[in-house]
Amino acid sequence: MRKPIFDRVTIIGLGLIGSSLCHVIRQEGLAKTIAGSAKSEATLKTAERLNLCDALYADPAEAAADADLIILCSPIGTYGPLAEKIAPVLKPGVIVSDVGSVKGAVVRDIGPHMPEGVHFIPGHPVAGTEHSGPESGFAELFDGRWTILTPLPDSDPQAVEKLKAFWERCGSLVEIMTPEHHDLVLAITSHVPHLIAYNIVGTASDLETVTEKEVMKFSAGGFRDFTRIAASDPTMWRDVFLNNKEAVLEMLGRFTEDLTELQRAIRWGHGDKLFDKFSQTRAIRRGIIEAGQETADPDFGRKHGKPKDSSKKSA
Amino acid sequence: MRKPIFDRVTIIGLGLIGSSLCHVIRQEGLAKTIAGSAKSEATLKTAERLNLCDALYADPAEAAADADLIILCSPIGTYGPLAEKIAPVLKPGVIVSDVGSVKGAVVRDIGPHMPEGVHFIPGHPVAGTEHSGPESGFAELFDGRWTILTPLPDSDPQAVEKLKAFWERCGSLVEIMTPEHHDLVLAITSHVPHLIAYNIVGTASDLETVTEKEVMKFSAGGFRDFTRIAASDPTMWRDVFLNNKEAVLEMLGRFTEDLTELQRAIRWGHGDKLFDKFSQTRAIRRGIIEAGQETADPDFGRKHGKPKDSSKKSA
Repeated sequence: MRKPIFDRVTIIGLGLIGSSLCHVIRQEGLAKTIAGSAKSEATLKTAERLNLCDALYADPAEAAADADLIILCSPIGTYGPLAEKIAPVLKPGVIVSDVGSVKGAVVRDIGPHMPEGVHFIPGHPVAGTEHSGPESGFAELFDGRWTILTPLPDSDPQAVEKLKAFWERCGSLVEIMTPEHHDLVLAITSHVPHLIAYNIVGTASDLETVTEKEVMKFSAGGFRDFTRIAASDPTMWRDVFLNNKEAVLEMLGRFTEDLTELQRAIRWGHGDKLFDKFSQTRAIRRGIIEAGQETADPDFGRKHGKPKDSSKKSA
Repeated sequence: MRKPIFDRVTIIGLGLIGSSLCHVIRQEGLAKTIAGSAKSEATLKTAERLNLCDALYADPAEAAADADLIILCSPIGTYGPLAEKIAPVLKPGVIVSDVGSVKGAVVRDIGPHMPEGVHFIPGHPVAGTEHSGPESGFAELFDGRWTILTPLPDSDPQAVEKLKAFWERCGSLVEIMTPEHHDLVLAITSHVPHLIAYNIVGTASDLETVTEKEVMKFSAGGFRDFTRIAASDPTMWRDVFLNNKEAVLEMLGRFTEDLTELQRAIRWGHGDKLFDKFSQTRAIRRGIIEAGQETADPDFGRKHGKPKDSSKKSA
C-alpha cells in the first residue's frame, strides 16, 4: 500500500458515488481515516453494516471537523445548506470539493460560505451506473473514467495538484476546465441524453395504442437501451436540471432543431438526407471506444442467450 | 440433433440477421440444405470463407428455386424487386418470409408478386447488435428474444405454425399480430429510439462550443449509450423510416410534445414535475428485466476497470 494522501477524508452523502469513494479510498490507502455522513438513518445503518467508513456521523459538521479533504456527494440541491453547516468547523488548509454534475451552480451555492484559508475546488467524476444508494458502490467505478476539476481563478495550485493526485489514485483521468465550460460539455454528453431517455420512456408508457407490456416485450429493438439511464436517481436529476437550466435549454434547442429536420426528411421521403445523417454517426462511437470510454463488444457486452429461469418465457 | 423442419431453406441477404440465421439453422439442424444469396461479391466471398451456407448464389432466383422456406434478410427497400425476381421459380407450398423491421410496407411490396399456392408470412425478429455484415452473425442472437409474425387474413394456419416452430427452434419467442399493429409497436420500441439516438449523436458532433474530442472523453455521462444504436446500418434504417412514415411521425409527435413539457418545467423551475416524471420510469426497466429482455447487471454488464492498453490514458 502506498502512502496516504490525506490524514482524514470526509465523505458527505453515501450513495453510489460516495460509497464508491469509500471503497477505493480504503482499497488504495488514500487516507488514514475515512469519515462519513448521511442524511438518512437507513443509509447510516447500511454504511455501518458494509463498514464503508471508519467513523459515521448523522451531523455533517461533526464529520467535517478535522478533515483534510471533504467531498460532498449528496444531490446538488443540498450543497448550499450543507456548506453553511460545515463552514464553522472547517480546518484552515482543508480542501472542500464535491461530485456534482453541474459546476456553475455549485460555485454559486458553496462558494459564499467558504471561509478564508479553505481550498474550495469543485469536481465531477464522469462515472456512474443506473443504481443508487450505499450498496451500489464499488472501488473500480472511477477506473479509466474522467474526473473534471473546475478550480476558481484564485484556487491554490498546490491544492489543485493534491486533489488531482487523489483522483488519479482513485483510478481516474483528470481534466481541468472552467465551471462554465463544464456545464456546456455535460449538458450535451450527459444532461440532455438523460432528459431524452426519461422522456421517451415516459412517452412509451403513456400510449393508448400500444400496451406497456408490449413496450417491455419488444424493447430489444432499441428502447431498452434508454431505460438504463432513465432508471437513474430522480432527486439527483431534478437538481441537475434545475441547476444547469441555460446550458440544457441551449443544447435541447439544438437537438429539437436537428430532430425537426429529420422529421421533415421522413415526411417528404428524403432518403439521401437520412442516409447521410445515419452514416456520420459511426465515427463518434469508434472514437469513444478508441478513447477507452466504451467497450468494443457488440451490444455493450450484454449476455446473449435464453433467460435462465424458463418461467420467464411466459412473460 | 433433432429432425429438420425444412429440406431446403434459402436466406437472401447475408448480413447480421441472415448470417445469424445460417449459424442457428446449422447448429440446430433445422434444414437439410442451407442456400444463400447476397448482392455483393465481397459478402459472397466472406460467406464462403465462413462456410455459412451449403450453396451460395449470386442470383437470388437460383437460390430460391426448390426452397421450402425463403427468408429475405436484405434491407426493406430491396424486397419488391427481389420478390418479382424470385416469383417465377417459387415451388408450390413454399413459405416466403422476411425479417424486415416494418411490416405494412412489406405486405405492400412483396404481396402482389406472390403466386397462388405460395405461403407469404411476414416476420420480424426483434433482435440485433450494432454490428453489420456477414461476419457479425452468431447462433445465439435470437435466444430469448421475440419474433413477431404478421400473417395475412388468408394465410394458411399450418404454414404459420410451421414458421412459428422454426423460429422457436432458433431460440426465439413468437408473437402473432397484424402488420399495422406491429408497425405502431416498433415505431415506439425501436424506430423512434433509433431516430433520437442518430439525432443526438449528430447534434453533439455539430457544436461549435464543445469539441468532438470532449464529447468522446466525457461520453460516460450518458451519451455513449446512444452511440451504440446510432452505429447501426444506415441503409437498413433509411429504409425503415421511408417505409414506416406514418407510425414514426405519430410517435415522434408525442415524443416532442412530452419533451416540450419537460423543457417548460426546466425553464420555469418546476422541480416537482421533473421529479414525478423521473420517478415513473424505473418501473418499466424493472418490467423489461423481469420479462427476460434485459440484463439486471448494472451498466448493461459493461466491464469496469482501466482500459488494458495504458496508452489509452493519453486519449
